[in-house]
Amino acid sequence: MSSATATDTPAAEANAFPLLIKQLLLTPLAVRPQQEIVYGDKVRFDYRTLQTRIGQLAGLLTSLGVKRGDTVAVMDWDSNRYLESYFAVPMIGAVLMMVNIRLAPEQIAYMLNHSGARVLLANREFLPVLEAIDEQLPDLRTRILLADEVGPLPTGFVTEYEAGLREATPITCFPDFDENTRATTFYTTGTTGLPKGVYFSHRQLVLHSLAAMAALGSASSQGRLHRDDVYMPITPMFHVHAWGMPYVATLLGIKQVYPGRYLPGKLLALIAREKVTFSHCVPTILHMLLGDATAADTDLRSWKVIIGGAALPRALAQQALARGIDIFGGYGMSETCPLLTIAQIDAHALDDPDEELSLRTKAGIPVPLVDLRIVDEDMNDVAHDGVATGEVVARTPWLTQGYLHNPDASTALWAGGYLHTGDIGNIDGGGYLRVADRIKDVIKTGGEWISSLALEDIIALHPAVNEVAVIGISDTKWGERPLPLVVRQPGSDVTEAEIIELVAARSRSGDISRYAIPDRVSFVDSLERTSVGKINKKKLRGLHDPEVAAGGPGSHEADHPTHRGTSAAHLQRR
Amino acid sequence: MSSATATDTPAAEANAFPLLIKQLLLTPLAVRPQQEIVYGDKVRFDYRTLQTRIGQLAGLLTSLGVKRGDTVAVMDWDSNRYLESYFAVPMIGAVLMMVNIRLAPEQIAYMLNHSGARVLLANREFLPVLEAIDEQLPDLRTRILLADEVGPLPTGFVTEYEAGLREATPITCFPDFDENTRATTFYTTGTTGLPKGVYFSHRQLVLHSLAAMAALGSASSQGRLHRDDVYMPITPMFHVHAWGMPYVATLLGIKQVYPGRYLPGKLLALIAREKVTFSHCVPTILHMLLGDATAADTDLRSWKVIIGGAALPRALAQQALARGIDIFGGYGMSETCPLLTIAQIDAHALDDPDEELSLRTKAGIPVPLVDLRIVDEDMNDVAHDGVATGEVVARTPWLTQGYLHNPDASTALWAGGYLHTGDIGNIDGGGYLRVADRIKDVIKTGGEWISSLALEDIIALHPAVNEVAVIGISDTKWGERPLPLVVRQPGSDVTEAEIIELVAARSRSGDISRYAIPDRVSFVDSLERTSVGKINKKKLRGLHDPEVAAGGPGSHEADHPTHRGTSAAHLQRR
Repeated sequence: MSSATATDTPAAEANAFPLLIKQLLLTPLAVRPQQEIVYGDKVRFDYRTLQTRIGQLAGLLTSLGVKRGDTVAVMDWDSNRYLESYFAVPMIGAVLMMVNIRLAPEQIAYMLNHSGARVLLANREFLPVLEAIDEQLPDLRTRILLADEVGPLPTGFVTEYEAGLREATPITCFPDFDENTRATTFYTTGTTGLPKGVYFSHRQLVLHSLAAMAALGSASSQGRLHRDDVYMPITPMFHVHAWGMPYVATLLGIKQVYPGRYLPGKLLALIAREKVTFSHCVPTILHMLLGDATAADTDLRSWKVIIGGAALPRALAQQALARGIDIFGGYGMSETCPLLTIAQIDAHALDDPDEELSLRTKAGIPVPLVDLRIVDEDMNDVAHDGVATGEVVARTPWLTQGYLHNPDASTALWAGGYLHTGDIGNIDGGGYLRVADRIKDVIKTGGEWISSLALEDIIALHPAVNEVAVIGISDTKWGERPLPLVVRQPGSDVTEAEIIELVAARSRSGDISRYAIPDRVSFVDSLERTSVGKINKKKLRGLHDPEVAAGGPGSHEADHPTHRGTSAAHLQRR
Repeated sequence: MSSATATDTPAAEANAFPLLIKQLLLTPLAVRPQQEIVYGDKVRFDYRTLQTRIGQLAGLLTSLGVKRGDTVAVMDWDSNRYLESYFAVPMIGAVLMMVNIRLAPEQIAYMLNHSGARVLLANREFLPVLEAIDEQLPDLRTRILLADEVGPLPTGFVTEYEAGLREATPITCFPDFDENTRATTFYTTGTTGLPKGVYFSHRQLVLHSLAAMAALGSASSQGRLHRDDVYMPITPMFHVHAWGMPYVATLLGIKQVYPGRYLPGKLLALIAREKVTFSHCVPTILHMLLGDATAADTDLRSWKVIIGGAALPRALAQQALARGIDIFGGYGMSETCPLLTIAQIDAHALDDPDEELSLRTKAGIPVPLVDLRIVDEDMNDVAHDGVATGEVVARTPWLTQGYLHNPDASTALWAGGYLHTGDIGNIDGGGYLRVADRIKDVIKTGGEWISSLALEDIIALHPAVNEVAVIGISDTKWGERPLPLVVRQPGSDVTEAEIIELVAARSRSGDISRYAIPDRVSFVDSLERTSVGKINKKKLRGLHDPEVAAGGPGSHEADHPTHRGTSAAHLQRR
């Protein structure tokens, strides 16, 4: 049938070009070898040195017996060392495991064992955690110390990182291998159940980087990310590869700034000193930054920020825009590498502040190669009218193939050939995604689904409200009823009746169902958060729902399919 | 060794995601379904209709017996039909063959037969060509007529395109298959020897599109190509997929304008009427456009143009910049899909017109994933100092794996594991490539290599020079000597002595070797060109070099390795 035969490709082996992480270094090293990498206040070197250090780290790991397929775990704050690990570990065919250092010691031990990690690079700050779980880690005896200051090598560590690099025989030529070789792994930080491991191959990370660069570069006539930018992550490098952006920044050959631990004053100082123009963070962190004492003195007018991890509240977006920040939403999750969509501001929207704000606070449009759908329980597409709601599902080349050693969860994740995000949302006529809520945070009341996030958005607009979380409380008559948990602004005396009336008014104008009008409001001092700073609704339900607190039927929801007709496995709460 | 086993990927088959051309349509259809496709003055429809028409064309071809691996050839000017073929043919697993309709009928017959084409889509304008070679095409009996006007169906055609689409059962769901499936093929238009077929897979075209979008989008703080642009090719769609840009434009979801045959007045009118902002062309075409009678009345200040196919002369760049055109160079060739480099203007260069011009007229920096080298005859890298010269070789995922049915040429092309471009050039400290010349157009004189292009650049700056080509003329003493062939500006009487002194002065200031100072200059009325508008130096040498004209040793250079110590097969002239 084909007129071309094997004789056409005599050089096929010689010119095969697998997609490998090492190739992300090709262009920057050719074009921007003098570009800087900065870590905190003391470390500053160029891409040429980055290349040298990657070779040294690869040599050190190889000398310690790390082989293709082995897992190397890292526990560190955002640093140049982490960036070097992002490259060196996969480039020798090993798997980089990013450890969420905000989790409980027992969870960390579970993840390290579950992933089969052979080598651990750990910051001195986490020695107490390691000591607490040392006996649970019998197979993890090769440990490298990460330290910002010179000091004694603790028991059980083979070397300190910088000393190890100095003494290593650097690897200068990295081999080609199968692009489907696993490159990274980490564990999802769900609020329920055991952590679940996701994993990504070289091919997936290269494609993710290219697509992210393509989407961000062409986002508008102003561009969003380009070769004159300066990058600093404010989503931790242990969290979904800092959204994959260190790889993108390296591919672009731009200056990169790694801030260590996130302290608002320090982050703001770095933005000012290093002229940072591009970052990403969750709403909570931006809220903290803008509220810091030094924020008013920091010029943020050249700063572009992608907000992800949670929907971007309009109030926060307005606050950021008033400071001159180019703020916009993005969407993805641990299972998706993570990028699925990025907010784009259509040219016509720039003339209409309200429309512009609306576009900025949506999750955005699919990046290239993302097949994004909103489906009902039978995997039928719902209308793209900005109203009809369903689960967000996706196909694209950079999604985790499953959960590590967890075939049942993997099968549920990929039910029907699409990855199920567990989020509900809608898509409008322009292809813009709005994520309404996690399926598990939807409140089912009076036969309707109420988005807790939509309700939060309304209540958050009240000037006396500092923060709000809405949870569903078990109700014998209605199934569930919404309960807003409100943190008042200091000195405010806003009442329950005022909050209820605020929602009722919006319901009368058709913005939200009348079932969403709360019967009562609880005022609290603060909201429980997860290790990555998201509001922990599971915990809040435990605290505020008597039935959950008593171990009633609502208390096991994480392990059961959602009720009320959503029996399909793909709607299982993860 | 690996801690992960096959049990980790229960859904691996369900969620495999091969890179296929159909996926380039995902984002635009989701986000910009109302965006326009325009062909000439009469055809205008949206992306939704494009999708429908692709499905209809796929259905038509399938009904005519086209199967996976079959080759479908197209002979057309730039049109929406061609764009539809770019998608529909590969999406059913067939191979799109783009026929260079400017070649001689015998060459066209050779290519159609050599590629094994089963189906031909041909514009009515090329019926005389087809009639002339009809007997040479016994296996190509399935022909579809492409016509802008309704008219009788000629003998030997099964249907007219639009009628065929109307009657077809559209394909709405395209299958997944191996991403390494061949998608496109076409023949290189070298000035010597038989045409050679190159070919590209789905994977290669998807990666090329992503990388081009990433490179063009992030090129500068202004961006170079973004979602508010309007695209019109001025490099034919039969030539290296119009540099792959119709795929990129579709992926971006931008308005696309197809101009049919290239007539300067018509192109300018389309730029004005459709608000075209992004094009690509060879220098000759831009020269013609800017010289057209209607050019002065056309506002070109929103127009961005990539120049490729030949180096961008400084004089032309200056002329374009004076008209407000954002002009910049790019580099690639048929064998490379084609994009290898794109000019980027560093922010600091915007303050220095001379530096800016220099960057715009270089070939640029490698796009992501391109491993670009300048090597000597032993494949050793030469210094990246902007001076040391060698052959440009490359690896990247989107290079042809060889030449169709031509194992010897394929082996030479890929000698040493890199694709050999046959170009000589240098790279400076910033990674900028300057292509000095084709190896075959380098003039070897007095033991030195002189770039004919460098010499042309100097002479072209003379205000009385309209066009210039420099060729090497056999010389018993020096090996070769440069001979400038000059087309004077109308009414000018510039002399041979003035031209020689112009070069001599630049030689005294160190810009070019003294061996480059010509002994004589020939004034001519016009310069011979190839079918794609490049200056045909082979023909010029035949006309102006007595030894070549007499069939002497210089006359067969295309089939022999270059002399003077460059015996390695990889320096063979193609």
